[in-house]
Amino acid sequence: MTIPPTPVSLRAKPGPTRLAVTGIGNALLDIIARDESDVYHELGLVKGGMTLIDDEQLDRFYQSMGPTIQMSGGSVANSIAGVAALGGAAGYIGKVADDEFGERFTHDLRTLGVELDLAVAVDGDGGTGRCHVFITPDAQRTMATYLGASNQLRVDDIREDLIARSEITYVEGYLYDLPPAKAAIARVTELAHHHDSMVALSLSDMFCVERHRHDFLELVTHDVDVLLANEAEAMALFQATSLARAFDAIDELGILAVVTRGPRGADVVTPAGVVEVPARDVENVIDQNGAGDMFAAGFLYSLARGDDPVEAAALGSLCAGEIIQHLGARPEVDLELLAIEAGLL
Amino acid sequence: MTIPPTPVSLRAKPGPTRLAVTGIGNALLDIIARDESDVYHELGLVKGGMTLIDDEQLDRFYQSMGPTIQMSGGSVANSIAGVAALGGAAGYIGKVADDEFGERFTHDLRTLGVELDLAVAVDGDGGTGRCHVFITPDAQRTMATYLGASNQLRVDDIREDLIARSEITYVEGYLYDLPPAKAAIARVTELAHHHDSMVALSLSDMFCVERHRHDFLELVTHDVDVLLANEAEAMALFQATSLARAFDAIDELGILAVVTRGPRGADVVTPAGVVEVPARDVENVIDQNGAGDMFAAGFLYSLARGDDPVEAAALGSLCAGEIIQHLGARPEVDLELLAIEAGLL
Repeated sequence: MTIPPTPVSLRAKPGPTRLAVTGIGNALLDIIARDESDVYHELGLVKGGMTLIDDEQLDRFYQSMGPTIQMSGGSVANSIAGVAALGGAAGYIGKVADDEFGERFTHDLRTLGVELDLAVAVDGDGGTGRCHVFITPDAQRTMATYLGASNQLRVDDIREDLIARSEITYVEGYLYDLPPAKAAIARVTELAHHHDSMVALSLSDMFCVERHRHDFLELVTHDVDVLLANEAEAMALFQATSLARAFDAIDELGILAVVTRGPRGADVVTPAGVVEVPARDVENVIDQNGAGDMFAAGFLYSLARGDDPVEAAALGSLCAGEIIQHLGARPEVDLELLAIEAGLL
Repeated sequence: MTIPPTPVSLRAKPGPTRLAVTGIGNALLDIIARDESDVYHELGLVKGGMTLIDDEQLDRFYQSMGPTIQMSGGSVANSIAGVAALGGAAGYIGKVADDEFGERFTHDLRTLGVELDLAVAVDGDGGTGRCHVFITPDAQRTMATYLGASNQLRVDDIREDLIARSEITYVEGYLYDLPPAKAAIARVTELAHHHDSMVALSLSDMFCVERHRHDFLELVTHDVDVLLANEAEAMALFQATSLARAFDAIDELGILAVVTRGPRGADVVTPAGVVEVPARDVENVIDQNGAGDMFAAGFLYSLARGDDPVEAAALGSLCAGEIIQHLGARPEVDLELLAIEAGLL
């Protein structure tokens, strides 16, 4: 599937039950600590990346962290929280356990007004997933994720309703780390196509791309309308030696893509060419965690409203600029008000 | 007890086992949410104050909150975390339950290097205490506290060791809300006097002062060397119609006091007179939660090091200025480095 250059199909349809974006991803609690003595390195984590850990590593990782702040996380769940904070109607599909972490995750999306279709894993799954986030003084975040119940997302957990009502269905690349999720994602894209919901994919992480490059290429070739990536992920996907070559590959696919470039902004890649959208000026960057997720929130919500991709990227930049000024990947200010004040909503 | 005008007794003594400050208070987890539609008011809470809630109200209060951030809290525990973040040796005495909240509270102080003497409540106590914090757009915080295990602090839980090694023993006024804590506080001050540890008292909250005014007056008259309060608390304690009259009352007692005045700074009241110390310029106040606690951290640590009270208040102001720039009452930056850069350590 490709999208037309002018995204007329993205315009919000009337009716109270339409959703701007429904996301499918790993339902995780973030456990966040500052890391001033490179503890992440001693633990064998790759800086800036996401490493999966198992239940035998859980306690050691937590005990090695300093004082923590805990809040709901999960890459696509963060984006969905962002869409809701922008005033958008949003949905979320994922899997939690019947425990305190799962309750909090559910609470934190539900109270934003997000429509939830959360499967609850049966006992013995190790609990709701948790992401241990190490924030180094350079504001980089290094993550160690215990998937827990997320790992149990099955094709049967994907129900039609939310996808059928959504302008955009947003899939988390990290899901490919879950063995049964491939079939679940196939079901998601099938439902989205059937209901004329655009499929957006986040490449999630460079190492995730390396682990699942073939699957991702299949997906972007046949099923994806909108690709969201950072520079490293885009180049890794197409094994490109430069960003320009990655853009060529995207152009050949004929899809819409947006490539985030940290402080240098974002490049919007459409069949009509590449447009650079600057990042917002931020004086004091505390934590880059969630920058990509919040960019996606603004970008996808704006697209779903019928804005053109360059306008959409401007809203994405605004949201990313907010999130990096504090610890944590969920917005702390009224994003809708911020966007209205900036003339972007 | 009174302290001499020149606080020579405050100078840190040699030896690795000396502590700057040991705190005794309610061990609480903070559950923090933004409140843009005055939910606190619908719940019957008094803006800016702390209201106690029981286990029957717990679920309703949590469900009425938006997405939350969770982190360790407790007024004096926050101050102790601040002392540790400033590089000071610190101790903490309190009571938690054997649950996930208690584990987190313990973890978050222990990893800062704080020496802990935490009693663990027996079953059936309703779990570790939790404080529900509503942050309104004016950056004010309104609190609903479920004391849980904190409520079980008994005289037997107060052990001698940490107090014996501390320059300053810091008592939380909120403890008076716990029926058995009065005897526990008497034991604390007795031990502190015996070991020549200065007794500092936080008045905690205006309504707390009103609830326990007589007890607090007894305490400041006979046992307290350093009194920490904000304007409202200081005036409530002495039933003074103006701050100047409250200062007169403090002067009569002959104790050292510091009265915080929000953006207008802090007044240091010594037998030699009152000195105004300005607040730090902060452009973007997000959450005033913890401002008093972090002021106390800087003030008490500096006093314990042998600085004069006006210097101590300057360090207090620096710490308070940091905490109000983000959600939550525990420091998010390296306070020691901040203080060194500001020439205050």
